[in-house]
Amino acid sequence: MKAQIITIGDEIIIGQTLNTNAAFIGEQLTNLNITITKTSVVPDEENQILSEFKDALEENDLVVVTGGLGPTHDDITRKCIVQFFRTELVLDQNVLSDVKKFFETRGRTLTKINEDQALVPKISIPIRNSRGTAPGVWIEKNKKIFVAMPGVPYEMHGMMESFVIPKLTEKIGDKKEFVERINLLTTGIPESILYQKLGDLNELLNGAKLAFLPSQFGVKLRLTVYEKSQEEAHNKLSEVEQKIRTIAGRYIYGKEEDSIESVVAKLLIERGLRISVAESCTGGLISNRLTNISGSSNYFDRGVIAYSNAAKVELLKVNEDIIQKYGAVSIEVCRQMAEGVKAISGSDIGLATTGIMGPTGATAGKPVGLVYIGICDDNICTAREYLFGDDRLLNKDRTSQAALDMLRRNLLGIPYEE
Amino acid sequence: MKAQIITIGDEIIIGQTLNTNAAFIGEQLTNLNITITKTSVVPDEENQILSEFKDALEENDLVVVTGGLGPTHDDITRKCIVQFFRTELVLDQNVLSDVKKFFETRGRTLTKINEDQALVPKISIPIRNSRGTAPGVWIEKNKKIFVAMPGVPYEMHGMMESFVIPKLTEKIGDKKEFVERINLLTTGIPESILYQKLGDLNELLNGAKLAFLPSQFGVKLRLTVYEKSQEEAHNKLSEVEQKIRTIAGRYIYGKEEDSIESVVAKLLIERGLRISVAESCTGGLISNRLTNISGSSNYFDRGVIAYSNAAKVELLKVNEDIIQKYGAVSIEVCRQMAEGVKAISGSDIGLATTGIMGPTGATAGKPVGLVYIGICDDNICTAREYLFGDDRLLNKDRTSQAALDMLRRNLLGIPYEE
Repeated sequence: MKAQIITIGDEIIIGQTLNTNAAFIGEQLTNLNITITKTSVVPDEENQILSEFKDALEENDLVVVTGGLGPTHDDITRKCIVQFFRTELVLDQNVLSDVKKFFETRGRTLTKINEDQALVPKISIPIRNSRGTAPGVWIEKNKKIFVAMPGVPYEMHGMMESFVIPKLTEKIGDKKEFVERINLLTTGIPESILYQKLGDLNELLNGAKLAFLPSQFGVKLRLTVYEKSQEEAHNKLSEVEQKIRTIAGRYIYGKEEDSIESVVAKLLIERGLRISVAESCTGGLISNRLTNISGSSNYFDRGVIAYSNAAKVELLKVNEDIIQKYGAVSIEVCRQMAEGVKAISGSDIGLATTGIMGPTGATAGKPVGLVYIGICDDNICTAREYLFGDDRLLNKDRTSQAALDMLRRNLLGIPYEE
Repeated sequence: MKAQIITIGDEIIIGQTLNTNAAFIGEQLTNLNITITKTSVVPDEENQILSEFKDALEENDLVVVTGGLGPTHDDITRKCIVQFFRTELVLDQNVLSDVKKFFETRGRTLTKINEDQALVPKISIPIRNSRGTAPGVWIEKNKKIFVAMPGVPYEMHGMMESFVIPKLTEKIGDKKEFVERINLLTTGIPESILYQKLGDLNELLNGAKLAFLPSQFGVKLRLTVYEKSQEEAHNKLSEVEQKIRTIAGRYIYGKEEDSIESVVAKLLIERGLRISVAESCTGGLISNRLTNISGSSNYFDRGVIAYSNAAKVELLKVNEDIIQKYGAVSIEVCRQMAEGVKAISGSDIGLATTGIMGPTGATAGKPVGLVYIGICDDNICTAREYLFGDDRLLNKDRTSQAALDMLRRNLLGIPYEE
């Protein structure tokens, strides 16, 4: 089955809003083994929307559209659907009662524009919306499937999970070719070094496909195999994955949707360990990432964002003389911060950062991008130096990633050195 | 001038990577008054890339491509360009010396695959890359412009700024129609209430266009006018903007690329005020946002992420009896947290959050999404109750946004109540 994803909205095309919807749908359809031939974004213009519907339905078996189904005047997708499929709008009682209920439970008054959202294209099956008021649209015509959903990600996710994915799964039935895919997540090694380390790719891959996807969080390796049976695909994937792990295993912190914070969270919980964090340059980002995981109160005790020197001394018991002698951005202060936060919290591990995120703040001998990361457990207390780039937010991301990787290596007994 | 943006890469189409490049380029081209007719994403497949090049160049004056110019085997864009324009690869000495220098300054050894990056399509002007090794491609043929850049955002941004934008500006010359656009950023009011508050849109807008763009951070209002002269466009925009501000001004925290943290940072610096933050449920997100701004050490003293009750008592001097009596998620504890962090830091303002972010953690009478936000200055100490949804990360975003808005209202003397 071939599919195209269409996103409607000026805000996407002019770059005000990131197209997270196309990414989400792309991932879901790929999981169903549907081949996505193209993703496109068109402005809120009737002619361009209609022409994109036409091209997409000619080339594909499935077209999934998001955006432009809301209640305000700039939402024109429903109108375009009515015109394209030469149908009309009819009132759907189920949708109307959904909309009424939505307003009732929130204690808000139903307005006319919201009531009008219960008008659906006659040719369609309305996709009910448990998270908002605009219904989605499912149309089958000439053996093609056309789906439209609101652009609000949370509402669209709900419709995909409760209706679109189950219905597509039912339609797809038997497969001819079997695809298996794994994404291995590495960090702490640049793309070209990793590429070299893996050696002769033809020999390593033996027909499998490998893509290198770098970001500030590390390099993602996407490994894909196509085989005649599920079993062959499965075995081939395991075999190549194992070879990659043998070569580069220490850099691989997880796979698929893992984040390094979810990986260390799991390790901390398994071992019954508690952590506290002392942040200077990362300004709360590490604590924020560690507490993005549900259940984080099981392993996260506290975080101290000691931005001023006074805070470092008062809250973390860093020695004032050491700050005077080496400066706040130094390996010595970093080590004391990690030690201090472990001591004041009674946690099993203390993690600390100090550095110059830029664009300003460089001093003689201490350039923008200079960072120290420290870690203390019951046995050892150490800090390392890193040199990142000159972009403040990328530097915060990279520092938090390196710190969480240091924690991961600590928990797994992997040396901190490359 | 009409343009299409093409992104190449399986990782985008299958939803592993967000298409931030298309957003960035879309924004830059829009600023140059170039009309973007479509944005598309195609997989790393030669035929699909070639066919997209063809369609895009037929319909547009300008085509901007990113992705697939890297050094590894899955990067095929350069090959496609050579084939599409029936040209050949030639060695460019400037690019070669850039690549050599890039490796030298990083103390890394130049490899053969990196050296090959100095091979550029003969028909093109190479766009030099100061932030990486792959050069970009600028081709002019039959009055059309074709640009290709690497997919690594930081490298692409550098090329856009140093080469592509100046060169396009030069090409565009005089304009016939004048567009002016402003984005007003609101928070603390739902889309449909804001829509109603604005009343009769035809009367309000008088020919201007207004789009409502909701997210967890608030509703962005994008106002656009098209007029015959720069001056008319400018005046019309000011006039409508003023009307909107009269109705909904208190919800508007900024415009364009402002973030609420950049707005409060500016206010704090102007007034010489320092802030400290006590976070429970937001886990460091507010501090992280406040320290994303360059120069944050001028106004941010410290943050305390008091996740455990012990941390609330030890670091913030919250009364243990109050926690026992009302629970850690209560208006009383929240107020004490704000008061505590202000007192221990000697800051001018203390800001605090406590709540249940979900998906677990609800108790009798305290559902997921229940949040308290507190603020203390030298005159007043208060806290308010909020009820958000059931998605953990959205709840963290919403809580941090509401807290920063409370801070903004405090600084501007706007009442906290809607």
